[in-house]
Amino acid sequence: MNSPFVSIIMGSDSDLPKVSAATDILKKFNIKFEVKIHSAHRTPDATHEYVHSAVNRGVAVFIACAGMAAHLAGVVASLTVKPVIGVPIDAGALNGIDALLSTSQMPGGIPVATVAIGKAGAVNAGYLAAQIMASTDSSIYKMLIEDRKQQADKVIAKDANLQQTLTDS
Amino acid sequence: MNSPFVSIIMGSDSDLPKVSAATDILKKFNIKFEVKIHSAHRTPDATHEYVHSAVNRGVAVFIACAGMAAHLAGVVASLTVKPVIGVPIDAGALNGIDALLSTSQMPGGIPVATVAIGKAGAVNAGYLAAQIMASTDSSIYKMLIEDRKQQADKVIAKDANLQQTLTDS
Amino acid sequence: MNSPFVSIIMGSDSDLPKVSAATDILKKFNIKFEVKIHSAHRTPDATHEYVHSAVNRGVAVFIACAGMAAHLAGVVASLTVKPVIGVPIDAGALNGIDALLSTSQMPGGIPVATVAIGKAGAVNAGYLAAQIMASTDSSIYKMLIEDRKQQADKVIAKDANLQQTLTDS
Amino acid sequence: MNSPFVSIIMGSDSDLPKVSAATDILKKFNIKFEVKIHSAHRTPDATHEYVHSAVNRGVAVFIACAGMAAHLAGVVASLTVKPVIGVPIDAGALNGIDALLSTSQMPGGIPVATVAIGKAGAVNAGYLAAQIMASTDSSIYKMLIEDRKQQADKVIAKDANLQQTLTDS
Amino acid sequence: MNSPFVSIIMGSDSDLPKVSAATDILKKFNIKFEVKIHSAHRTPDATHEYVHSAVNRGVAVFIACAGMAAHLAGVVASLTVKPVIGVPIDAGALNGIDALLSTSQMPGGIPVATVAIGKAGAVNAGYLAAQIMASTDSSIYKMLIEDRKQQADKVIAKDANLQQTLTDS
Amino acid sequence: MNSPFVSIIMGSDSDLPKVSAATDILKKFNIKFEVKIHSAHRTPDATHEYVHSAVNRGVAVFIACAGMAAHLAGVVASLTVKPVIGVPIDAGALNGIDALLSTSQMPGGIPVATVAIGKAGAVNAGYLAAQIMASTDSSIYKMLIEDRKQQADKVIAKDANLQQTLTDS
Amino acid sequence: MNSPFVSIIMGSDSDLPKVSAATDILKKFNIKFEVKIHSAHRTPDATHEYVHSAVNRGVAVFIACAGMAAHLAGVVASLTVKPVIGVPIDAGALNGIDALLSTSQMPGGIPVATVAIGKAGAVNAGYLAAQIMASTDSSIYKMLIEDRKQQADKVIAKDANLQQTLTDS
Amino acid sequence: MNSPFVSIIMGSDSDLPKVSAATDILKKFNIKFEVKIHSAHRTPDATHEYVHSAVNRGVAVFIACAGMAAHLAGVVASLTVKPVIGVPIDAGALNGIDALLSTSQMPGGIPVATVAIGKAGAVNAGYLAAQIMASTDSSIYKMLIEDRKQQADKVIAKDANLQQTLTDS
Repeated sequence: MNSPFVSIIMGSDSDLPKVSAATDILKKFNIKFEVKIHSAHRTPDATHEYVHSAVNRGVAVFIACAGMAAHLAGVVASLTVKPVIGVPIDAGALNGIDALLSTSQMPGGIPVATVAIGKAGAVNAGYLAAQIMASTDSSIYKMLIEDRKQQADKVIAKDANLQQTLTDS
Repeated sequence: MNSPFVSIIMGSDSDLPKVSAATDILKKFNIKFEVKIHSAHRTPDATHEYVHSAVNRGVAVFIACAGMAAHLAGVVASLTVKPVIGVPIDAGALNGIDALLSTSQMPGGIPVATVAIGKAGAVNAGYLAAQIMASTDSSIYKMLIEDRKQQADKVIAKDANLQQTLTDS
Repeated sequence: MNSPFVSIIMGSDSDLPKVSAATDILKKFNIKFEVKIHSAHRTPDATHEYVHSAVNRGVAVFIACAGMAAHLAGVVASLTVKPVIGVPIDAGALNGIDALLSTSQMPGGIPVATVAIGKAGAVNAGYLAAQIMASTDSSIYKMLIEDRKQQADKVIAKDANLQQTLTDS
Repeated sequence: MNSPFVSIIMGSDSDLPKVSAATDILKKFNIKFEVKIHSAHRTPDATHEYVHSAVNRGVAVFIACAGMAAHLAGVVASLTVKPVIGVPIDAGALNGIDALLSTSQMPGGIPVATVAIGKAGAVNAGYLAAQIMASTDSSIYKMLIEDRKQQADKVIAKDANLQQTLTDS
Repeated sequence: MNSPFVSIIMGSDSDLPKVSAATDILKKFNIKFEVKIHSAHRTPDATHEYVHSAVNRGVAVFIACAGMAAHLAGVVASLTVKPVIGVPIDAGALNGIDALLSTSQMPGGIPVATVAIGKAGAVNAGYLAAQIMASTDSSIYKMLIEDRKQQADKVIAKDANLQQTLTDS
Repeated sequence: MNSPFVSIIMGSDSDLPKVSAATDILKKFNIKFEVKIHSAHRTPDATHEYVHSAVNRGVAVFIACAGMAAHLAGVVASLTVKPVIGVPIDAGALNGIDALLSTSQMPGGIPVATVAIGKAGAVNAGYLAAQIMASTDSSIYKMLIEDRKQQADKVIAKDANLQQTLTDS
Repeated sequence: MNSPFVSIIMGSDSDLPKVSAATDILKKFNIKFEVKIHSAHRTPDATHEYVHSAVNRGVAVFIACAGMAAHLAGVVASLTVKPVIGVPIDAGALNGIDALLSTSQMPGGIPVATVAIGKAGAVNAGYLAAQIMASTDSSIYKMLIEDRKQQADKVIAKDANLQQTLTDS
Repeated sequence: MNSPFVSIIMGSDSDLPKVSAATDILKKFNIKFEVKIHSAHRTPDATHEYVHSAVNRGVAVFIACAGMAAHLAGVVASLTVKPVIGVPIDAGALNGIDALLSTSQMPGGIPVATVAIGKAGAVNAGYLAAQIMASTDSSIYKMLIEDRKQQADKVIAKDANLQQTLTDS
């Protein structure tokens, strides 16, 4: 079996700019990943085959990104007991509230780990995947701890910068 | 091939009381139908097999009833080019607005004919299926014309009754 | 009687760019269609006359496109037992959620087959009309099967392209 | 021509309990009224005929009460330039937000005077009709002024009662 | 007493472009009107005084335009039994859904005739005011009948134009 | 001038059960208060007079409770620069989302301190009033610190109780 | 360090009936868990201490259940890089849509894995925790695979039962 | 102890343009203030320390500005019994309705004084802070009274200007 990896599936190539926010996070933690375009509705059979293939090859976590009536995460979750993270994309007239409800309101027994709508959600899908993989890879855990500190330091630096600006003015 | 029929699929047996509103309409027009419990999420493979089987046996129209993140109609629609009617069920905390968006906001190429939330929607799914089948069965068309007249007569009778009540009082 | 055709009615000529997404689909399947501007509110009598005329001339399916308090599909549905597809247009301040509810939440007995808000909905109205007409025209059915395959192939090609990009980078 | 009157139309007899809140107000101001059951969708022709008949008989104001995809007020407004008041009824799964949007979001040129959802709206439809008729009937205007004072007195009496209770306790 | 007129009050001068859509309609019907900037919240006393003054000078109808927590129409309605039309303005982050609810959901006894959000609503406020004034001024009634025909003719002309385009292409 | 007190105004006596949740909190901190029924819409003049009277008598904070198109807090805020707390009441068909938007979405310059919908909001209105009065009354501040500790202790006791239950079972 | 366990935190003991839906799932998979009552707002320090303690004792996954402005999951997530699952509880007037948005719309960098509102969400929180723990415990993975089959079998049995009923009737 | 001041905390430096609307108001009333960048989620410990420090240094009022799942105001409120004003920022796909609910729907015992979404809310946070501080500083109270008059005068001047424009045209 291959070493564990994250599988990112998006419903349409128009979602790629948002998906790249997730891959940036995974790269930061040296996590292997695949990015696939698979539509729950246009390529249901290919989606099924791909999910089974990824499971067989040792996938650790799925990330599914889709907009509107976003069924992709739910369809992936119906085919595996690996953790599935759903990113609702803000496509279409309703700005992603449709995708948020279609992704999060799953019936009991088939969970989808839903994150925020759009780019913030894609970022958090990357982090959540890393957090899940950290349970078996202590180097990721250490990097996450370090990254969290850096996030804090960045906020603190911005505040220091602001205080300087306020003093100067 | 069998004579054309309607396939009604519900995500859970708790939807049966609402689904029966659809079958009542189909019975009125002497339309053959099947009722199946198939969960897009819990029995994805059985759902796929059933949809293919129903298509092979000459299904005319699918009706899919589901609540919350209602993916059932979309999953059925992804597997066939037969018309698929989606009934959003008012289950869960959000009273069906989640199911309405999950059913109606389908991406281009894979249509679902969405009707109202809950029982009114189930009734209309029955009527819409009959209207679609009427294109190949003129006896259904005649019955629909007659039924529409009876619907009108019923409203008119209620109004006459009301006028009587108002005059008497 | 003429050969069957689709009647597309829009409430305002400002909806034309979205409506053309529906006619593009109908052209792809060699389906005859009419496009009419008729307002449920500004030309109620002309709307009634047109609907009756279209029915008399053998219309197979109506597609009604309207925004805001979108009554057009419901008004058409009240005048015929032919299938009526409603496309909620994202006009006005509320981006089409008003049109979605005004189109889908029809009372029992008078169904409207509601599709997604805006352009995706117009595309799907074209597909749904073709799927309904396919019940009497096996050549459309074959084209729909073929088109669905092409939709899948297009997604698969985009994925292949993406894999190439990922490998190269 | 008859003396002016208010025409109240409801889409279904199930709306009668709420409609009676409007007629109670009209009775208080000695305003003549008719109450009719007419469905925009089930009896479109009878609705058209009735609206034309009411106009010919000197109707002053229409009040239309309907739930869900509430098209009734819009349909009436499309047939007359008499003022049309729309009462969104809280029927169905969405508690009247669908009816509020379907009634209020009318396109330019065909106004509907929309009031609150449900019983408070029916009460206010009665008041608004009286206020409109007061422009030609000064006795109604005087009664409205008097009634407004009584409304205030009732609130003030309730407050006095409350103060008594608070002092006693 | 002066001849009857319409009083248009807006909460902020930023609403003027939308308000002018209402005055355009009133000018078309030769209806006298005043336009005032009065804030329910910033100038409550001036608002009270103005409403009383307008009533004393024979105002026929008030039109109140406001956004966000739009209290203006309700405040005006609390001070008079003349008909008050409320136009919810799409200002602020919520695009007018806040103003629609703040304007329409009035408690029983104090009606506000609410129209659509934004410009379509301002147009309809002008029409509704004219329709109310037509009850005492038959020349306005005739103009409204004529205008409605012209609205219909305009739609029919657009349709004829479209048919020409479709034939030519 | 009297010692500082809190003025609680409710739009209707039906709000009394929720308002009592606020007075319970004020009693706990020995804060003087008045409770008044005043409708922004039914008794606008009495509301104005009362607000001015309360200001003259040394009111510290206003609490205004109202449902639906909840203008009461905004009207009070337009008449004073004393802090005004608004409690949106869950009355009517929309469960208080209308009242929340009508209370919170105030235009710049006239703030309303909005708390949660319904009873939780009434409780918090009591606390917020106490917190504001604590700036001039250190005994209230001390009681608030103590109360916060007790709130924490209560949660901790409930947790201890739960742990006992879990151990026993 | 102890063996890995799940920590379930609820904001109030009134959430216990829903939380038990999560513990039932964990028991089924023989997963160790703690259940704690900790309020993000009433016991912030105890919450911080508990989260740090649980991390030190080897917690694998947190589940946080809270209603209204549900900050609990976000607060826990801000204190750890262990995976945090958030269950929005349908408490208060808005039936959980407030909790869903407060839980899911987290800023980039601090993910919360949000599941459905209410009981279905609690069930899925249990499953998702098990799925995450299965990455280090193959016995849980096998039980999850088996459980998924049983879920499917249960649906299939219900369908078989339904077919029997339909045949008999 | 220092003289009383307002502490403004924002979750991200991207909120600065909106926050400056609050500081402009505070400057107008000569109120001392601090502006800090502190994230409830990225710097929870620094946030705790800062809140305790500000309380120890005599803070009078906190203003917390945050978007999306806006927990910042709630977190600050959990750490102090000083009044906390929450400004929901319109960041992300949902335009601030998520932040409004996350800020206002606080559980009983831990109030947040919520103002409007975005810039109008920031302005009002400044005013509300000044109104609260006016209880201990009569010079602020006098300035608030004067400012309110100027707000009114500005509206009245705009109206006068409009009347001039209307007369001239």
